[in-house]
Order: sequence, then structure tokens, then C-alpha cells
Amino acid sequence: LISKLPASPENIFSKMSGLANRYNAINMSQGFPGFKSDDRLKELVYKAMKGGYNQYAPLAGIPELREEIVKKIEVLHGKKYHSDSEITLTAGASQALNSAISAFVHPGDDVIIFKPAYDIYEPIVKINGGIPVHIQLKGKEYTVDWNEVKTKISDKTRMIVINTPHNPSGTILSKADMLQLENLLKNTNIILLSDEVYEHIIFDGKKHQSASAFPQLSERAIVCASFGKTFHNTGWKMGYCVAPEILMKEIWKFHEITVFCVNHPMQRAFAEYLKDPETYLSLPQFYQEKRDYFLEQIKDTRFKVIPSAGTYFQLLDYSEITTESDILFAEKLVKEYQLASIPVSVFNINNQDLKQLRFCFAKENETLDKAAEILLKIG
Amino acid sequence: LISKLPASPENIFSKMSGLANRYNAINMSQGFPGFKSDDRLKELVYKAMKGGYNQYAPLAGIPELREEIVKKIEVLHGKKYHSDSEITLTAGASQALNSAISAFVHPGDDVIIFKPAYDIYEPIVKINGGIPVHIQLKGKEYTVDWNEVKTKISDKTRMIVINTPHNPSGTILSKADMLQLENLLKNTNIILLSDEVYEHIIFDGKKHQSASAFPQLSERAIVCASFGKTFHNTGWKMGYCVAPEILMKEIWKFHEITVFCVNHPMQRAFAEYLKDPETYLSLPQFYQEKRDYFLEQIKDTRFKVIPSAGTYFQLLDYSEITTESDILFAEKLVKEYQLASIPVSVFNINNQDLKQLRFCFAKENETLDKAAEILLKIG
Ligand SMILES: CSCCC(=O)C(=O)O
Ligand SMILES: CSCCC(=O)C(=O)O
Repeated sequence: LISKLPASPENIFSKMSGLANRYNAINMSQGFPGFKSDDRLKELVYKAMKGGYNQYAPLAGIPELREEIVKKIEVLHGKKYHSDSEITLTAGASQALNSAISAFVHPGDDVIIFKPAYDIYEPIVKINGGIPVHIQLKGKEYTVDWNEVKTKISDKTRMIVINTPHNPSGTILSKADMLQLENLLKNTNIILLSDEVYEHIIFDGKKHQSASAFPQLSERAIVCASFGKTFHNTGWKMGYCVAPEILMKEIWKFHEITVFCVNHPMQRAFAEYLKDPETYLSLPQFYQEKRDYFLEQIKDTRFKVIPSAGTYFQLLDYSEITTESDILFAEKLVKEYQLASIPVSVFNINNQDLKQLRFCFAKENETLDKAAEILLKIG
Repeated sequence: LISKLPASPENIFSKMSGLANRYNAINMSQGFPGFKSDDRLKELVYKAMKGGYNQYAPLAGIPELREEIVKKIEVLHGKKYHSDSEITLTAGASQALNSAISAFVHPGDDVIIFKPAYDIYEPIVKINGGIPVHIQLKGKEYTVDWNEVKTKISDKTRMIVINTPHNPSGTILSKADMLQLENLLKNTNIILLSDEVYEHIIFDGKKHQSASAFPQLSERAIVCASFGKTFHNTGWKMGYCVAPEILMKEIWKFHEITVFCVNHPMQRAFAEYLKDPETYLSLPQFYQEKRDYFLEQIKDTRFKVIPSAGTYFQLLDYSEITTESDILFAEKLVKEYQLASIPVSVFNINNQDLKQLRFCFAKENETLDKAAEILLKIG
């Protein structure tokens, strides 16, 4: 038996959540909320099931939901997608990312990935015969060196993957970044894959710069989004992607042979729920308060805070506390101190150490209190 | 833009259901039930959502559901799968089929597919660089010529796909078939992909012969199943596959980068619902009555009935009525007579005509009445 993905390590999220359960630890590792999601949404799912929406939805999703989403994007980013040909509901953003990469990456194609990066881009690229081309994000602020990007772009470059707000670092791409990117891509055939699952979790009055908002990006961009991250139900596995029709047509061919369509009653529920923009416009304040609460509690530790501008993740630099590796220190924390986090090295080039751990602060304040107590004890 | 699946036609199910809507036709094309699904299951989903099961499930599925499923398989087929390492919950059987084929088919590998065949096996094989090797099912009974299979097996054969009960024909593999298959595969490394989504829809006292039940098949088999087909909710997109650990480990690597996990509250609901075997043991009688009711209504037409032993599909041979092609006759039926079916040719080698249409009889009796009226009018 020859494995097609021989190098796959144990999934870091399964591993850390598994350890968290085994050691009865506070779980700030895998990115999901630790509080109750909105009952109204559950009522809407129930109503949809009782209303008989239990059979296959159309391949791209139900028209009502597709229309709500394109309206939302138009209001937020000024870009009008066609609801009949430029959007697809997916089984979480993961399946959107998978279908998007699989549809366009041919054997031998280069795909530019900024590191550290969320862990699924790279194996999807490889399984399609693509070659991941890494660019290290720079410094504690994890900034992009666009001159370096320029040197990495060639005729072989099929795709470039961006992720803003960025997991794991919590940094965001600025308007200036997006304009630089636009400038680099405008006379090429490079496809832009923009993972924007944390689009609504952004702090300090900053604005999310969606690839949709930049004409010379949106014409080549597949933008992926997540209802799980936005509406506090990562276990419902609902997301979507938008892209120009010429790209979406190819994505459909892969969507069709991967899932065909996604959960119908939940699509009904989201179509209704999305009509109230408060459901997502309230997120920046909500999560900023969580971030600030957590940071306040840990301000007297020797963990150094790496500013988080978005996402519900906070990186903590532990280099003043120990010289242990990210992975060993994270394991020690969960096993000996009952606090689970994600070692940032798993997202980095060659798993290179960064002496940083990632903490998901989408938790009840009392959970954040307990976590802070532990962090105070450690350093 | 070079398409990776250039030959993909419009999806036949989207097309026919679309036409059915447009022409306000009775929709017996796409395979889904036209009646209400069980309210108890909806209550269980609601309870799970309210109970807080809204975040990521484990990658392979929740232990409670995995255990219920392996228990069910042990009772029905005498094979005990390990619930921790030999089963995965998937986003419908489609995603199980996709991950299973993608995990094992390398470029240049032969994959044996019996035709007519459900339409997604082949593009998944191709996208992985595999070569579909077709074997025509024989005659009106769509039987397998095992001697022919023997001649098609070679060192290049990576996988053989079976589907029992069979979509679109409604035939089933007998115990003798399975023993022949066992004999052919026993000294090879060939992987068996067994699509058994209609396992519980089987008529006339016959018994479903699962690949799980045959030791020298189960040791190499990935068996795919569907809650959508079994529990009347194709729009919930829940299925699973079982396989020996050595195979399942590879499937996990693809599952992880395709969806990571599937709908959590619905998994909770099924874990509870599966405890009552009546929910699926009642299906043979239920659907046999539907089949017989439909056949009784159309007995005076010139459509010739091709015996359906399982699935909720009935093939009708229209060769005495017209010489039109399957596809044109199906289009005519939906546009001019408001009755949608599936032209069987779309599943056949080179879309070769069979002068047969496939009708899904998982409908209310009054819908079957109306369909029969139309069929009487036509011929
Ligand atoms: C699919 S589990 C991982 C969830 C997540 O987005 C993260 O923790 O980074
Ligand atoms: C995914 S739509 C097709 C449903 C089905 O199994 C069929 O009609 O054959």
C-alpha cells in the first residue's frame, strides 16, 4: 500500500483537543467557541426540518441563501456577485478550499503560501501535484515582504493563497497590502485563493480588506467564508465561496463529485438569519472584549503578547520562560498544567520553532480566568 | 484556463430536477423521497442543537454514533469493525466515495467499473489520474459476467467498484456473485469499493449481500453507506464508510483535508435514532409496497418493466413506444408530459442508448397515480 500522503502527521487539532479531553484541560487549542450559539438559529433549523426541507438542495445552494450572501457582500465590499453563477455553499470552508485548489492546480504548478499557514492548504496542493512555494511572514507582526513575493512569482505560479485575518497570527492585510498584491497580479493569469473565514472578527476599528473589494483581485479571486466561525457553530460545517463565473464553473465540477450539495435545512435557516446584519456586525466588539479581557488577566505573566488584530486567536511568545520547542512546551502545558493550546511551529516552514503558542479566546470569561491563572503560575 | 475535468456534462440530476421545476412536472428523476421524513429524528436534531453539540465533532465522527453503526453491521453481517479505527462519518456517501477513491488511486491505475454506473465514480477516478476500465452489465437483468471481469484484472488494477443494490438498474449481487468476486480478488492487492447506499431497500425477501459479510472481501473493502437514502433525508448529507484500519488511516488523510468532520448535532441525533432497528428494518416492506403499487398502476402501458430487486428506482423499457434516444425521450417526457425521469444512457458506456428510463418511486401514492396516468397516456 503506497500512501498518497505519506508525510501526514497526526492532525494537530485532533491531537490537542484529544489531549485536552484526556487531561481534563481547558481547551484553547482548536478554534471553536466555548459558549452557547444563538437559539434563534436553532429554531430556524428546526422550522426548516419541520417545514419539509430535508431533501437535496441544488448543487450550488438554495437561491434564497445565495441571494442573501451576495447582498451582504455588495453592502460590505461593493462587489456584486451573480447569485446564480458566482457562489457555492460548501461543507465548511475546508471543502471550499479543497474544491478551489483541486479545480485549478495541475501537476507541476507553483502555489505560493505564506507561512506560518493553516495546515490544509499544503496537502491539498500536493495531492494535486502542485508545488508549495513558501514565503515566510516577517517578524512578530507577521508582515508580507511584497518584494520577496515578486521574486517568487514566475510562469509556473498558478495560485497564491492569502488568509486575512490570519490564522494563526491574528494579523490582517492592510489596504496597502492588497494594492501591492493587485499590482503584482494584474497582468498575470494567477488565481488568488483568499481564505477570509475570520472576516467578521476584526478589532480596534480596523476594516476587513476582502479580495472581493479590489476589482483586479476579485476578477481572479476565490473568496472562502465560514458560517461556523461567524455564527458560533463550527460543528454545522457550513461555508461558501464566491468567484467569477469562469472559475466557479470549474469549482462546481469538483463540488459535484465531492458532496454534490450541502445541508438543506441549515441553508434555509441561514437564509433567514442573515437578514439581520447585527448577527455578524456585533462580532468585532464581542470578540475584542474577549481579547482584551484575556490580555488584562495575563498582563503580569512573562508571556509576551503578539498583537492580535483579528481572528479569535492570540499568540503568546514564551521565549522568556523556557527554551523548549513549541510542540514540547504545548504538550507540557496540556499534560502538566491542563491548558491546551496550539504550537505555532506546526504551521511554519519545516515546522521551525517560533517559541509561540496560539490560544483561542472564544471562550466564556470564567474559562479565560482559569486559563490566565495557569499562565500566571507558569511564568 | 485549462479545465481539469473538461468533459463534464451538465449534472443529470440538476438538469432533470431543474426541468421538472420549470415545467411543473412530477419529479421521479433525482433519487430522493417525496414524502415526510420521521419527526422523531428532527426532534433529536433539535435536542442536540439545544444541548450544545454545535462545535466540531471528532474527525472520524462522535464515538456514540460510530459504536451504534458498528453494532448494527455486526448484527446484520456478522463482521465486527473497530469503532475507533475502522469507520468514518462523511458528508453523504459522495464524500466517502471521493475520499476512498482519492486515497488509493494513483496515476495510471486501472479501476474496474460496471456500467451503467452511478455518475460520480468515473470523474473521481480520472481526476486522480486513474483509468476507468468498463465492464458492461449483461442483458435486461444487468448481470455480471465474472469471466469477463477475470480478463480485465491485471497488475494495473488498483480498485474494483461494486454497487449493490444497483443504481440505476435495481438489481442486486447474489451470494454466488460475492463468492465469485472473493475468488477473483483473494490473492491480489486490489481494493474493493462497495457502494451500498441502498442496503436497506431490498425486495421479495431477498437479503442484502454486503462486502462486509465476506472475510476475503471485507479485508480489502471500503463499504459506503448513506443515512440520506435510509432515513429519508438526502438533504442532510450524512453517510459513512467502514474499512480495515490500514485503509481507513489513508482515507482519514483525505477526509481531513476535504471536510475535517461532519455535522455534529445530526450525528448526535442519528446515534440515538439508530438504537431502534425498526427505523431501517421496515424499509423493505415499505418500498416494496411502493414498487408494487406503481407497477400495478402502469401494467396496461407498453412500457416494459425491468424487475427491480432493490433501490427505490424502477427501470422502464420504452422500446415498443418510440425509437427516440433515452435522453431525448426523457426530455420530451418532462417538457411535454410533465413527468421527469433519468435517461439510463447517461450512466452507460459512451452514453450508449438502452431505450430505458429510470423512475424514482419513493413518492406518495397519489404522485405515483399521477405519474401512471401520464405513462398510460404515452403508451
Ligand atoms: C477543523 S479544526 C481547526 C479549526 C481551526 O480553524 C483552527 O483551530 O485553526
Ligand atoms: C446527488 S443527486 C443524485 C441522487 C441519486 O443518488 C440518484 O438519483 O441516483
